[in-house]
Amino acid sequence: MSGADHPFDSAVRLAANGDGAWAGRTHPAYGNMVGPFGGVIAAAMLNAVLSHPARQGDPLALTVNYAAPIADGDFRIGAVPARTNRSTQHWSMALTQGGETAITATAVFAQRRETWAATESGFPQAPAWATLRRADPVKTAAWTSRYDFRFVRGGDLSAMPAAEGPDSVSTQWIRDDPPRPLDFLSLAAICDVFYPRIFIRRPVFVPAGTVSMTTYFHADAALLAVQGDAPVLGVARASHFGKGYHDQVAEIWSRDGLLLATSHQIVYFKE
Amino acid sequence: MSGADHPFDSAVRLAANGDGAWAGRTHPAYGNMVGPFGGVIAAAMLNAVLSHPARQGDPLALTVNYAAPIADGDFRIGAVPARTNRSTQHWSMALTQGGETAITATAVFAQRRETWAATESGFPQAPAWATLRRADPVKTAAWTSRYDFRFVRGGDLSAMPAAEGPDSVSTQWIRDDPPRPLDFLSLAAICDVFYPRIFIRRPVFVPAGTVSMTTYFHADAALLAVQGDAPVLGVARASHFGKGYHDQVAEIWSRDGLLLATSHQIVYFKE
Repeated sequence: MSGADHPFDSAVRLAANGDGAWAGRTHPAYGNMVGPFGGVIAAAMLNAVLSHPARQGDPLALTVNYAAPIADGDFRIGAVPARTNRSTQHWSMALTQGGETAITATAVFAQRRETWAATESGFPQAPAWATLRRADPVKTAAWTSRYDFRFVRGGDLSAMPAAEGPDSVSTQWIRDDPPRPLDFLSLAAICDVFYPRIFIRRPVFVPAGTVSMTTYFHADAALLAVQGDAPVLGVARASHFGKGYHDQVAEIWSRDGLLLATSHQIVYFKE
Repeated sequence: MSGADHPFDSAVRLAANGDGAWAGRTHPAYGNMVGPFGGVIAAAMLNAVLSHPARQGDPLALTVNYAAPIADGDFRIGAVPARTNRSTQHWSMALTQGGETAITATAVFAQRRETWAATESGFPQAPAWATLRRADPVKTAAWTSRYDFRFVRGGDLSAMPAAEGPDSVSTQWIRDDPPRPLDFLSLAAICDVFYPRIFIRRPVFVPAGTVSMTTYFHADAALLAVQGDAPVLGVARASHFGKGYHDQVAEIWSRDGLLLATSHQIVYFKE
């Protein structure tokens, strides 16, 4: 499927709407239980910078703060270059609906160059994608049908254990459905596909949602381009749950063991 | 030493300078090789929100983007409440010098309440603070004299190994010098005390600096208050180095094994 026709591209598409401002619209294919899937909103925030004529370099860091629920329908994103240096550029973004701020965000873009390199995180042990069964989507969350998830360990809400587990670790293969070549936008969204860790640790559904998410892109554009539409391997865990919030630490790996992104979020839960 | 007299409090002190605006000044006691220690700047950004009359709740998440070097001297911080909800409040901040933006930041404040709680990260193995020797500060970085660091494993730049190490993990005790009761401001700064992981992994000094840092506060005000001026235990590592940047993942633990904060940053390095 060509990029222009893919529902993900429709969901993150922005139309120029003034100086440094874009108009977007939520897409039903990426709907969540209420409003849109947060990963697609993160991608739309990033797309406002990628679409900006002043943009230099590729995404290095993206922080998205989910300040208020987003209603299905139209939204507006403003993106301002706060500082442009020789090799980095800093951006501030905001998404508004009806004149009220619903999302704030910052991004760092950078021009990458070859240096010494090493990976200290370990590539997760996982059976090959093709040997695993695709998990059932969550019927009440349309966006879960737009990903082919194959769970290696933990995280499958369609096969929840009966009792509290020892930890909240999930390892899972992830691919866009329909398959789509990986780019910064889809990688930004994929960093948010992990179900709230509180659901994984305890087999009970409670109100929960991401409050703030930060992603570091270790892959540059060239490395993403060679991934094509191959599945990526994700691993997520929490460090701590308490007083209404838990964190999540996630890694996204290429099929052949390269660390593409690390991502962190803080999640509200009610209980 | 009372809070008002401590050099840290002098370094993060802000004077009201208009609506949502504050004036601050770098402090020589927290100088770095060039400009101020980034941890104190992170604390000053947080202090702009803590000082704001509209502030509700306590810090939950803080992202600070180091967009440009800060010169020693005066700076101005603006803080804007982007959205206020019943239990969370979202802030956008910027630090300027000479009218140019040097730092952008966002913060989430929250009103915490008791819920189910669990910690999945493991408390690092470490000998007691009192049994370890204080490390020598880095003479060219004044701020390193303002912390009593006692290294358990890795990270001591005054005792660098001769050859490249197997990883960049550091475990170290950390206490303000002079001792100072822990609060959100000092905890925000402590999250940035770890030397760049590239120095730890490879015993060679190269230009390096934090580009963006995000901290999640797991401790609430009551838990911080009972820490007093006891040392905290920090652990830091990197996931990946490459193409001019590496990440850092850090945890700050109380002496008795409670996870106070997790913090992540992306660091520029030249080589």
